[in-house]
Amino acid sequence: MSEEKQSKKLSIIAFSGDFDKLTAVFTLATGAAAVGYEVNLFFTFWGLDAIKIKQGRSPVGKGFLPKVFGIFMGGLKAAPVSRLNFLGASPKIFRYMMRKKNVATLEELVSAAKALKVNFYACEMAMHILGLQKSDFIPEVKDVLGVATFLNLSEGGQTLFI
Amino acid sequence: MSEEKQSKKLSIIAFSGDFDKLTAVFTLATGAAAVGYEVNLFFTFWGLDAIKIKQGRSPVGKGFLPKVFGIFMGGLKAAPVSRLNFLGASPKIFRYMMRKKNVATLEELVSAAKALKVNFYACEMAMHILGLQKSDFIPEVKDVLGVATFLNLSEGGQTLFI
Amino acid sequence: MSEEKQSKKLSIIAFSGDFDKLTAVFTLATGAAAVGYEVNLFFTFWGLDAIKIKQGRSPVGKGFLPKVFGIFMGGLKAAPVSRLNFLGASPKIFRYMMRKKNVATLEELVSAAKALKVNFYACEMAMHILGLQKSDFIPEVKDVLGVATFLNLSEGGQTLFI
Repeated sequence: MSEEKQSKKLSIIAFSGDFDKLTAVFTLATGAAAVGYEVNLFFTFWGLDAIKIKQGRSPVGKGFLPKVFGIFMGGLKAAPVSRLNFLGASPKIFRYMMRKKNVATLEELVSAAKALKVNFYACEMAMHILGLQKSDFIPEVKDVLGVATFLNLSEGGQTLFI
Repeated sequence: MSEEKQSKKLSIIAFSGDFDKLTAVFTLATGAAAVGYEVNLFFTFWGLDAIKIKQGRSPVGKGFLPKVFGIFMGGLKAAPVSRLNFLGASPKIFRYMMRKKNVATLEELVSAAKALKVNFYACEMAMHILGLQKSDFIPEVKDVLGVATFLNLSEGGQTLFI
Repeated sequence: MSEEKQSKKLSIIAFSGDFDKLTAVFTLATGAAAVGYEVNLFFTFWGLDAIKIKQGRSPVGKGFLPKVFGIFMGGLKAAPVSRLNFLGASPKIFRYMMRKKNVATLEELVSAAKALKVNFYACEMAMHILGLQKSDFIPEVKDVLGVATFLNLSEGGQTLFI
């Protein structure tokens, strides 16, 4: 572990909208940011759900088809677990276990990420497909980027696809 | 983002056969290649489906068991979405939305990747398990590699598992 | 592929408990270790299942809720395939195909990883949530780490999230 000249960097392409995987994204992001890493999150496809303002199963995008997806992509509170979803019970159990064990819940991890100056970016192409605008997202979203720009930002650090 | 002496490099282990994840693989690959990255794709397990010549739900491998998997791994046109598959409707909706928004579809992204000289590699071990030969793949597949050789190729760049 | 001054390094965050993805983790780990890579595996969430001593669908954690998850996280022999699970038949088919083709099975890959001095680490936070102790894991688990410590260990190499 030789000291790097530039500060350490973690970049995550947050593709999944699953509760457990989003928890992993924000656990990694906050854990790294807390020890001084520059952290860049690039939300794309289902992952865009994590940064939408309007939470709950309501249609956000414009047009019929984005609406269909919008209803099924219901934001953080509705995010399913990738395995063992038990008709929606599993995220609640997770939340309960996290609470009971005094571990930060997903919403708290998102707040912590904001406080720790984690950089939030949204994927231009996925927004285009899903009919979403920058105004649909929380104000912490710093910019709307293309893939190549994000990869450039991530150079010289560790990059994960989740 | 200091200029690297060597050219920038993106390597992806394409493990998933899901439509949305394959779209992510080829979006990242073409986006990076378009700005001068060296891009290496290593197709393994379900991801091998993306580079098979014989598209559609037909058996490709030799032997009974590879056939069973071959039928279920139906190539790009049959690739399911990892969430919200709606009995096969979802990839069609995606394709429709991508078309309507003038975003490249998965097949177009694959063509673009070929044109942009993205390097396609197939995983030796997964081919062995699934009873596939190099001749089962599109001619753009440059080589059949083991894991260690691919990791070596990927050194010094960003490597993703999708 | 210029020779690196430091030895090459592969780090994997093993998040998934799916049979095919765990096979990918250990194939990459053993393939890299066999050619001299330093390999670090960080087991978290469903991935912790791969390093539990008590295999089979039995409750391991303490308390009711960890038990519920423990029963569903049944260890390596019960690990489902991420696609095409066929009510549990698919891992058996895979195992049979791997055996028939003389490819190492998952259990053999885990043994090989141990023999090749692959480093096993367990995620502190996930253990806490799931009510697991270090003593629940195989003795090869070198340490229990937080996210930031693992990312620090992974600096300068290739890092994957599987």
